[in-house]
Amino acid sequence: MIKAKRVSALALELQKRGLDAIYLGPSTDLEYIGELDTHPDERVRGLLINKNARLAAITPLLYKEEMRNAFRGDVDYEEWNDHEGFTEAFRRALSRLGALGGKVAFNDGVRAVDMLAICGAMDIQPVSGADVLSPLRSRKEEDELVLMRRAGAIADGVVEKLRMFIKPGMQERDVAKVIPDFFRELGADGVSFAPIVASGPNGSMPHYGGDRRVIEENDVILLDLGGRCMGYCSDMTRTLFVGEPTEEQKKVYEIVKQAQAAGEAAVQPGSTGQDIDRAARKVISDAGYGENFFNRVGHGVGLAVHENPYIIEGNDKPLEPGNVFSIEPGVYLPGKFGVRIENLVAVRSDGTCETLNKFPRELTKVARRN
Amino acid sequence: MIKAKRVSALALELQKRGLDAIYLGPSTDLEYIGELDTHPDERVRGLLINKNARLAAITPLLYKEEMRNAFRGDVDYEEWNDHEGFTEAFRRALSRLGALGGKVAFNDGVRAVDMLAICGAMDIQPVSGADVLSPLRSRKEEDELVLMRRAGAIADGVVEKLRMFIKPGMQERDVAKVIPDFFRELGADGVSFAPIVASGPNGSMPHYGGDRRVIEENDVILLDLGGRCMGYCSDMTRTLFVGEPTEEQKKVYEIVKQAQAAGEAAVQPGSTGQDIDRAARKVISDAGYGENFFNRVGHGVGLAVHENPYIIEGNDKPLEPGNVFSIEPGVYLPGKFGVRIENLVAVRSDGTCETLNKFPRELTKVARRN
Repeated sequence: MIKAKRVSALALELQKRGLDAIYLGPSTDLEYIGELDTHPDERVRGLLINKNARLAAITPLLYKEEMRNAFRGDVDYEEWNDHEGFTEAFRRALSRLGALGGKVAFNDGVRAVDMLAICGAMDIQPVSGADVLSPLRSRKEEDELVLMRRAGAIADGVVEKLRMFIKPGMQERDVAKVIPDFFRELGADGVSFAPIVASGPNGSMPHYGGDRRVIEENDVILLDLGGRCMGYCSDMTRTLFVGEPTEEQKKVYEIVKQAQAAGEAAVQPGSTGQDIDRAARKVISDAGYGENFFNRVGHGVGLAVHENPYIIEGNDKPLEPGNVFSIEPGVYLPGKFGVRIENLVAVRSDGTCETLNKFPRELTKVARRN
Repeated sequence: MIKAKRVSALALELQKRGLDAIYLGPSTDLEYIGELDTHPDERVRGLLINKNARLAAITPLLYKEEMRNAFRGDVDYEEWNDHEGFTEAFRRALSRLGALGGKVAFNDGVRAVDMLAICGAMDIQPVSGADVLSPLRSRKEEDELVLMRRAGAIADGVVEKLRMFIKPGMQERDVAKVIPDFFRELGADGVSFAPIVASGPNGSMPHYGGDRRVIEENDVILLDLGGRCMGYCSDMTRTLFVGEPTEEQKKVYEIVKQAQAAGEAAVQPGSTGQDIDRAARKVISDAGYGENFFNRVGHGVGLAVHENPYIIEGNDKPLEPGNVFSIEPGVYLPGKFGVRIENLVAVRSDGTCETLNKFPRELTKVARRN
């Protein structure tokens, strides 16, 4: 259903930025405004919203039922046929909203090739709409927080189940394969991203994409996973040990644990994304591993797994109540192993930190065969 | 690994079109050129290729190992850090290739918001690169056809397994859930898209996205599914019956079956996508169901599930040997049921049709309990 309150807030945001309209392609923005959960493909569809909160949808005939079922509400539809192409429908929609010739933002669900086709076929001034909805989306309301807490608790449960499940001799993919099932068993609608199961030296690639290595005795295993509750995502990382860690592994784990805790402790009234990044990073740099932690400390999470606010050097905007983001420092030692610990946190109305993941941060070994 | 022969062919294509360079974001184009199988996200990465076949990659530090492992070969890398942003790395890459100020194509893996950031930060003339690689990709070579035949045979096997598996009382999602497992059991690397299991009246939405309906006695079930072999996709639809079809269902099924056969028969030396579309569509229109078949008859398939050539009114380009595409007419009766039959076919060197799916087109019922 179209969320009228959010449309009004978005229209105000357009006015503030001097925009005539925004076009939302398939994306979590569209899910946020109209509860349409869909993915970009080569058939253009989306929603135009103008500064007076009027709505016009563009849809291929093929998807019109799906779109009408999702949106309901007060929307004009412009449909197009495979053999006509979409640009004329887009022009009619823009014209209905009085935005032809105007300044039109495109969100991150729009492909460059489609925007170029639009700009070639009609008179508009295109601008980036990457962050237009961020001020709305990054301040979660209570009903959104309820879902994020639930998603976080389920992720905790999945890590606990994995602690019991993982055994040496399994391939990484054997572990990855059960994660969606574990999420569903515990009540999630599915996973929020393809889980990362990075064992041994693979843990040194923060976004490792493989799955074939066989887990061995004394491996370090990095598990990065998340599920979805009514669209809202969890995102959590724990690094588990198969057997006894080495002295180096214990030392690195302790540093990352302290860095993660320092990040959470830095969530205070008035603190910025940059403050959190610096607080966590300082622990790692002071311990001499600064070069082995080369990415941001965290990112916002909500309907998208990555959204505002970003917890990164250069983000000097004060955090706001309702912000939800990850704090996920790591140390990555190429050819050896990697350690990352990631919790989601929410900023309370008083500016303090609520941690959405309760699985212990302490060094944890997988359960042994008895 | 970077495919040098394909890079050379692409460079010639750029020269022919008066382009200085093309930028490939995460997409099947990138898989085709560099064997990097990845998805768009908010961290920009991709490959620039200039008209002299020089290569420069843009990558966040986070993904640099993954990208180097995929590409190997003769590529310059421009890396960027989360806190710097990507535009400076992009400018350095363009400058290395002598394409600053030039005409640069963007492929369909690039987001509009990122292209706008690039255009705002440096001097280039952006153009759509949606179809630049199509002339190469749509003419499959023998090693590609081998994989597509295998993917097709596996899809046949999955439909046969589903014929035995589906029983009244299951939810659509119970069926959808086993499809990835069936594909893997039969040797695919995974599914090529989220399968459609549309039962009863849900079959009237050609791209139905739900999964909750309970399958009942005498339902019509539309199954649209595909798997992947080394990147290459199958895409196949069969409509199965639970119990005895009604007279109307039998009649509609027969029409769709004849339309599908007419499409395949129209694949002849010199025929165009439009010819195939018309041949299949005519059977349905002549039977009085023209309004219940409102989308194109088919689309190319390869590394992408939807690619050139499109089998559609208006495509008057003659088909070429090595083209692989779907022929998938359907009749969709809102509130009642839908029937679609889809095979992939390849154009042989003599211009005739090789069908990649062997599961019978004949009306088929699911197996009964004992």
